[in-house]
Amino acid sequence: MSTVALNLAQVHQLAERCLAANGCDAANAAALADTIGAAERDGCHAHGLFRVPGYVASLRSGKVDGKAAPRVEQLAPGVVRVDAGGGYAPLALQHGRQPLIDCARTQGIAALAMVNMHHFSALWIEVEAVARAGLAALACTAYMPAVAPAGASQPFFGTNPMAFGWPRGERAPLVFDQASAAMARGEVMIAAREGHSLPPGVGLDAQGAATTDPQAIIDGGVLLPFGGYKGASIALLVELLAAGLIGQAFSFEAKENDNGDGGPPRGGEFILAMDPSRFGDANWLAHAEGFFARLGGIAGVRLPGDRRYANRERNAAANIEVPRSLHDRIVELTGD
Amino acid sequence: MSTVALNLAQVHQLAERCLAANGCDAANAAALADTIGAAERDGCHAHGLFRVPGYVASLRSGKVDGKAAPRVEQLAPGVVRVDAGGGYAPLALQHGRQPLIDCARTQGIAALAMVNMHHFSALWIEVEAVARAGLAALACTAYMPAVAPAGASQPFFGTNPMAFGWPRGERAPLVFDQASAAMARGEVMIAAREGHSLPPGVGLDAQGAATTDPQAIIDGGVLLPFGGYKGASIALLVELLAAGLIGQAFSFEAKENDNGDGGPPRGGEFILAMDPSRFGDANWLAHAEGFFARLGGIAGVRLPGDRRYANRERNAAANIEVPRSLHDRIVELTGD
Repeated sequence: MSTVALNLAQVHQLAERCLAANGCDAANAAALADTIGAAERDGCHAHGLFRVPGYVASLRSGKVDGKAAPRVEQLAPGVVRVDAGGGYAPLALQHGRQPLIDCARTQGIAALAMVNMHHFSALWIEVEAVARAGLAALACTAYMPAVAPAGASQPFFGTNPMAFGWPRGERAPLVFDQASAAMARGEVMIAAREGHSLPPGVGLDAQGAATTDPQAIIDGGVLLPFGGYKGASIALLVELLAAGLIGQAFSFEAKENDNGDGGPPRGGEFILAMDPSRFGDANWLAHAEGFFARLGGIAGVRLPGDRRYANRERNAAANIEVPRSLHDRIVELTGD
Repeated sequence: MSTVALNLAQVHQLAERCLAANGCDAANAAALADTIGAAERDGCHAHGLFRVPGYVASLRSGKVDGKAAPRVEQLAPGVVRVDAGGGYAPLALQHGRQPLIDCARTQGIAALAMVNMHHFSALWIEVEAVARAGLAALACTAYMPAVAPAGASQPFFGTNPMAFGWPRGERAPLVFDQASAAMARGEVMIAAREGHSLPPGVGLDAQGAATTDPQAIIDGGVLLPFGGYKGASIALLVELLAAGLIGQAFSFEAKENDNGDGGPPRGGEFILAMDPSRFGDANWLAHAEGFFARLGGIAGVRLPGDRRYANRERNAAANIEVPRSLHDRIVELTGD
């Protein structure tokens, strides 16, 4: 595959200019480019520049307001809401993050309800930021139907990622971020684009038969939840937190409401934050570190997030190889 | 298998008398018998009378205080703690439930940290009770090492159940309760006792090889997490909430601290409660019901908890068939 080598500043600029040229104001373009850059930096290409054409499509169709200004309000002593005003998640997260952190420190536990928002990236970005402030954080969001409930062969749940971050003092937080699908839709799309086949158990084709062909899943097929009915329960939990609890669209509703432009549908996100220092154990940090030391010492075990941090360290001094077709498409969308 | 037919009142009395004869005070014996009776009523035999010999062993060894009086304290505006005082979970839950519910209604979101406790039952009992009060509830607890982390072949995580309940107004709450293990240890023990084999993917034997023999898993083998590394992440989350956050024993510590009497180790439990009416959508109840109607209408799909409620309805008027060997053992332990 032909690629273009870009450093992280160039990745950021490529995204920011394209988004600004397509209707984002400076604040939104910068926040989106930060998120896209963070994904590329950490080797999470499915949420990096690969998303730019979808962002642009949703700006051009008028579905998403690239000039939206998020508004923060306190719904209850432990509940903060950010109304994204029909804009994208990254700027709304910038506005909501500190109020959530402040609320969790005061209350011990707090929730952030993010509404009227279009989310098109990974969740580890938000839980890592909250965990770096010394809090445990859990985030989830619904999406359009892509995953079959246990026993079914039609899509109903979104890929429904859940991310968790645990603060580790001076060390980078422990973070996992995983779709309730056996594989994230973005990964299936990457596999299709690159012509890879998938492991068994990832999905069914349009006829409801098991397949390892990513394109067969995209073309009217369906993803399966990870781990059978137990993973389906996690997908259900995500729907109820990210949609039912906060009054936003369930995945099936998000699709019914969406204009099909290829960009992210409107929906919500739920973030939980807890301050371990308010739960009664002054030794919590060292206690958890002892646990991680034991876990990480088992042969064959890697702590969640370690690979992402290794990518980050490597990419800080290296170039990102961006597929040339993607790079050229973004340049074209920028109108240069 | 020879059985003894008991109605629910007789199940309750059988458990209560045995526990009282072995050192429980009236409050603890009644709370334990309520929990055991609820499990038998709902067809969850692995958490019913089957547990009584383990309870008795832990009373006789002196590990658990059958006369413990739980104490409730407020750690932060959104954090309630119940110190079980070295006793069993059911009485501690009775004390902590209403303070948790009140706190969640006031704050919008609240956590209950249960500490110095011995938990030997299912979690759906507590999340159902909180959900019947109109709140969404998530509960989890760690246990002794039984599940291998992703990539490992030795036990480190507990079976680590996570339960969730969603309030449905006049209807019974939606509830799921699932081990992070591919199968709960209690179910494996039942299968071994009854001579059933297991589906593939449940565990490894003492040599680290895949097995479908429940006894091979019990005899020095290990359970696997559901859904590979993603289920392992859920098991890790449970350790961090039910142990790290609230200053209680991780599963590996619980085993190191335990006297091996066969009863439940000392540890903690984490319960999260959220009041949907405080999250900004006055229509939340009907909105979620629309979601359940769509989900339940898909061919092949059953809502979590439906089978348990069906068992409950059937058993309200029927007898429970208790294995005679278990019945006689409990009578013997009672000293009648």
